Amino acid sequence: KDQFVRIRSNKLFEIFVVSVIIFSALLVGAKTYEMSSTMLQIAHFLDWFITIFFLTEIGIRFVAEPRKRDFFKSFWNVFDTLIVVISMIPADDTELALIARLVRVFRVLRMISIIPELRILLVSLVKAMPQLGYVMLLMFIIFYIYAAIGSTLFETINPTLWGDITISLLTLFRVMTFEDWTDVMYETMEVYPFSWLFYLTFIFFTTFAFLNMVIGIVVNVMEE
Amino acid sequence: KDQFVRIRSNKLFEIFVVSVIIFSALLVGAKTYEMSSTMLQIAHFLDWFITIFFLTEIGIRFVAEPRKRDFFKSFWNVFDTLIVVISMIPADDTELALIARLVRVFRVLRMISIIPELRILLVSLVKAMPQLGYVMLLMFIIFYIYAAIGSTLFETINPTLWGDITISLLTLFRVMTFEDWTDVMYETMEVYPFSWLFYLTFIFFTTFAFLNMVIGIVVNVMEE
Amino acid sequence: KDQFVRIRSNKLFEIFVVSVIIFSALLVGAKTYEMSSTMLQIAHFLDWFITIFFLTEIGIRFVAEPRKRDFFKSFWNVFDTLIVVISMIPADDTELALIARLVRVFRVLRMISIIPELRILLVSLVKAMPQLGYVMLLMFIIFYIYAAIGSTLFETINPTLWGDITISLLTLFRVMTFEDWTDVMYETMEVYPFSWLFYLTFIFFTTFAFLNMVIGIVVNVMEE
Amino acid sequence: KDQFVRIRSNKLFEIFVVSVIIFSALLVGAKTYEMSSTMLQIAHFLDWFITIFFLTEIGIRFVAEPRKRDFFKSFWNVFDTLIVVISMIPADDTELALIARLVRVFRVLRMISIIPELRILLVSLVKAMPQLGYVMLLMFIIFYIYAAIGSTLFETINPTLWGDITISLLTLFRVMTFEDWTDVMYETMEVYPFSWLFYLTFIFFTTFAFLNMVIGIVVNVMEE
Ligand code: NA
Ligand code: NA
Repeated sequence: KDQFVRIRSNKLFEIFVVSVIIFSALLVGAKTYEMSSTMLQIAHFLDWFITIFFLTEIGIRFVAEPRKRDFFKSFWNVFDTLIVVISMIPADDTELALIARLVRVFRVLRMISIIPELRILLVSLVKAMPQLGYVMLLMFIIFYIYAAIGSTLFETINPTLWGDITISLLTLFRVMTFEDWTDVMYETMEVYPFSWLFYLTFIFFTTFAFLNMVIGIVVNVMEE
Repeated sequence: KDQFVRIRSNKLFEIFVVSVIIFSALLVGAKTYEMSSTMLQIAHFLDWFITIFFLTEIGIRFVAEPRKRDFFKSFWNVFDTLIVVISMIPADDTELALIARLVRVFRVLRMISIIPELRILLVSLVKAMPQLGYVMLLMFIIFYIYAAIGSTLFETINPTLWGDITISLLTLFRVMTFEDWTDVMYETMEVYPFSWLFYLTFIFFTTFAFLNMVIGIVVNVMEE
Repeated sequence: KDQFVRIRSNKLFEIFVVSVIIFSALLVGAKTYEMSSTMLQIAHFLDWFITIFFLTEIGIRFVAEPRKRDFFKSFWNVFDTLIVVISMIPADDTELALIARLVRVFRVLRMISIIPELRILLVSLVKAMPQLGYVMLLMFIIFYIYAAIGSTLFETINPTLWGDITISLLTLFRVMTFEDWTDVMYETMEVYPFSWLFYLTFIFFTTFAFLNMVIGIVVNVMEE
Repeated sequence: KDQFVRIRSNKLFEIFVVSVIIFSALLVGAKTYEMSSTMLQIAHFLDWFITIFFLTEIGIRFVAEPRKRDFFKSFWNVFDTLIVVISMIPADDTELALIARLVRVFRVLRMISIIPELRILLVSLVKAMPQLGYVMLLMFIIFYIYAAIGSTLFETINPTLWGDITISLLTLFRVMTFEDWTDVMYETMEVYPFSWLFYLTFIFFTTFAFLNMVIGIVVNVMEE
């Protein structure tokens, strides 16, 4: 067991783990290019090498843990174990091949668990979320009311954009990002000439709520 | 009366009120999907149940109020009463059906009056408005002058975009959101090759005024 | 002279001046709509009434000034006088009619000189400009280098966008506002497959410089 | 040598250097316009004059330096020397003509080394970079995972946008700038109706990371 602890704390081992993670990320990227069958076989072999390596690494960390119960109390241990276990889905079956390939993508996320600074950053990002909670709820209420109005009034004009409340929410998100929003507006203005009021008030309210959210975070961060 | 006070303060009753509000919001959303006639009848019945429930709830709160005069002094009581009363427009008539349906949408706004945090948030948003007053007036003057110039010079080029000052204001708002603004510009540049000056100065002034507004709010919030 | 001082300080007179300015702004807007010849004649008459009224008002303020020399030392007096004098260009000649109409638009700017809060706001905006000076110079250098590269490499691909350095600067400003920038990029990528590097580095540098400018203003304002 | 020190410190000489740099920038711009052969010859001659002038100027500064070793320890001396030396590539050969012309563009960068305020600004911008390091790494991981998923799922739908991971990264950057992102989304939604989740989560994560980056810089700058 002492030897495992020594391996875990070894600087070279750490560098090797980071290298394998980066290599697994590159492999994920490489597989999106067209490959010869030889290359595919190599990629397949490397995939299994990475899986086994990750399993071994987690095994070492588990054995090196003084109290076994505490191992899974750490969020990042659970995170790593889950990613490794899930990425073991066999990719031989053509049906599952796509899913298996997608699942392997998430091994790139191990970059976050291995680099302490990224871990701290992510924790601070997640901690900032609850502060946004109520502004996002308010924004959702604005979206919901406008989507309900939009799908009631504009449904017959363009069902692709205003067919039901879900599609309308998506269309409104598009309007919020200013993506060809005037095309959406000009279309409804032909039937309801005053529907620019709908879009302008919506943009005003959401921009205002968004600005408030940003300013809220700035002030919160400053106070600390 | 004491019993009404007890009901109002009851935790379970509060949860039930919130549930009905969320349910009424879902119903508003559901009605934007195509429904069978049975479903429509159920929706119609549920609509009346929600209306009666809201009426009862406001009634309880009114009776529980020690001094009746103070009830309508509270903005949120007036707000709730108005929403409930207005949403009682009968939706049987085909003429009024659409309006009645739209009016029911605003019942979602009761989410704001029921959740104290949202109420506080909205009050703080509204309080931030007067600080924006003069920057918005300045921005409106910029818009107005550019719209007057635009509709004088470019009217003959594209009456849909520059027909009169109202349409020009809308076109300028579009330019401000960068929405296909170069299409608008390239069109006028064919007649007035230097009209890019019009757009660039406009974007410069409005961006500058907008930034100033944002920074103004940040500084104001910080000072508190 | 004392009587002129009394008129200038009169509350009713002040309200009347503001009313005439707002009215002149509305008249500018109204003239962008199609008008009957009777209406046009009325508008023409009102134009002259406003001009004469503004002349009289400045005259009163000039006479009421204790030391005549100091009158034109005030920026806002010069500003008002210039606007009023320039807007006296006769609009009878068809050649000059358009220019005369445009010049009258700037009478709306008197809103700024009459409302003290807007005057203060504008002064503070102008004062913030020099702080931006060097960041804007840096941004111009970035623009200039990219425009020179762009018009050298891409001129033959699309002369409308990259014909010479002036047009290239305009195209780059378009890219900076993200306005259909991928259309511009995809076009050049067909000839130079790596030209995405040109756009991405440009967007990176300008966004970075812009952010720095905003943060610079925030910090400057905070320090006061 | 004392005379060289005197020349370097001379105010008139400094103004002359700045003038030549601005003139060389204008020449770079002028060459993007169509020119007669006479003009081209003049431009060619001026190019050589500028090169020789810059060489002389650096020579003077080098001779005026008390300890020769320290000359190249200054980043800006190395920067100036490199720009001048590289821009000496002969532009006679048609093959190299384009490269020579492009290289001369970078002489505009000497504006930064000659104006102390720009130099300070650039140094402060570069110093702000490491603070962004980890947020940008996190953003790259987000981009990489989404690009891997995108090129796995959407490759067959549109190979131009999702062909391999490099193209997918570019497409995602486009989505991040909101540039016609709904066109990209609507296309994939026809095959995978729930792919809006892909885009919305991507926009949410990157906007959140970007906001965090901006706020991080503001807070860092404030603390100083
Ligand atoms: Na667009
Ligand atoms: Na856009």
